[in-house]
Amino acid sequence: MAIQEFYPDDVAHCYGCGRLNPHGLHIRSTWDGDETVAFLTPGEYHTAMPGYVYGGLIASLVDCHGTGSAALAAYRACGREPGSSPPLRFVTASLKVDYLRPTPMGIPLEARGRIKEVKPRKVVVDIEILAGGEVCARGNVVAVLMPEHMASGGSVQPSPPLGQQEPKPSGLR
Amino acid sequence: MAIQEFYPDDVAHCYGCGRLNPHGLHIRSTWDGDETVAFLTPGEYHTAMPGYVYGGLIASLVDCHGTGSAALAAYRACGREPGSSPPLRFVTASLKVDYLRPTPMGIPLEARGRIKEVKPRKVVVDIEILAGGEVCARGNVVAVLMPEHMASGGSVQPSPPLGQQEPKPSGLR
Repeated sequence: MAIQEFYPDDVAHCYGCGRLNPHGLHIRSTWDGDETVAFLTPGEYHTAMPGYVYGGLIASLVDCHGTGSAALAAYRACGREPGSSPPLRFVTASLKVDYLRPTPMGIPLEARGRIKEVKPRKVVVDIEILAGGEVCARGNVVAVLMPEHMASGGSVQPSPPLGQQEPKPSGLR
Repeated sequence: MAIQEFYPDDVAHCYGCGRLNPHGLHIRSTWDGDETVAFLTPGEYHTAMPGYVYGGLIASLVDCHGTGSAALAAYRACGREPGSSPPLRFVTASLKVDYLRPTPMGIPLEARGRIKEVKPRKVVVDIEILAGGEVCARGNVVAVLMPEHMASGGSVQPSPPLGQQEPKPSGLR
């Protein structure tokens, strides 16, 4: 299952990756060894020029695969399974994309993430976007734990820093 | 008229700003003094979380307003009106967005561009994204003249560097 399947309902409406957004792109991020991976097939209208993929769509793939990869990395860093409580939901603080060559339409795009840094409230991810095995763009995402006030349903509580998520047995403090 | 109205037909299908893309966002960039400006009202499904605008949409606005601003600046730099020949069409080489605060839904976004650098084949633009007058994101776009092979209809010819667009009167060379 992709990490986005575990996002709490009140924060699962992202246009890029929310499973509850019927108009969205439904980007889904999983582990593949020590890398993360997501696939996206552009719609025929997602063009830059005829024949080439729109750069804003590539940025969206970098964005959502970045925050998804950050959540995957954060759960792994604190030894928890996605779906365990409290939920870890990241948002993008900054996004960078270098477009290396025009990205051809008509084939699925593959996003591959490498986790560069995992801190208590911040994860940095490098992402390559490939089409037909060729790297077309390189991205970088700085993702931060979502501020609790952004979750309308209260699902996201103030989180302790990563690594302090497991309550210690009483008497050991 | 916005610069995107002058893009030749064969390079006017961009999902973000192409006037010939019926499914697109139709971002339109104009001068406002020495700055450039574009407006975009997100669809109700363009959410990050309920109540807040999707970061990938903001990146798309930065992207297309960046290339539009680059074209505006390039025409101005060589003293030509948009629509004069040869057409100047830019694409994004790199894109950076810093998300400063969650961007509220339900109001038009305003993108304001400042031209930082104009070189023969490269223009750099800083862009602020505002909602209700408050800066929510800051972007930077490095735009480059579109490679001619990207234009399916042959509208984009190999361009001389900016400033050498006007043929010199014979006898003065």
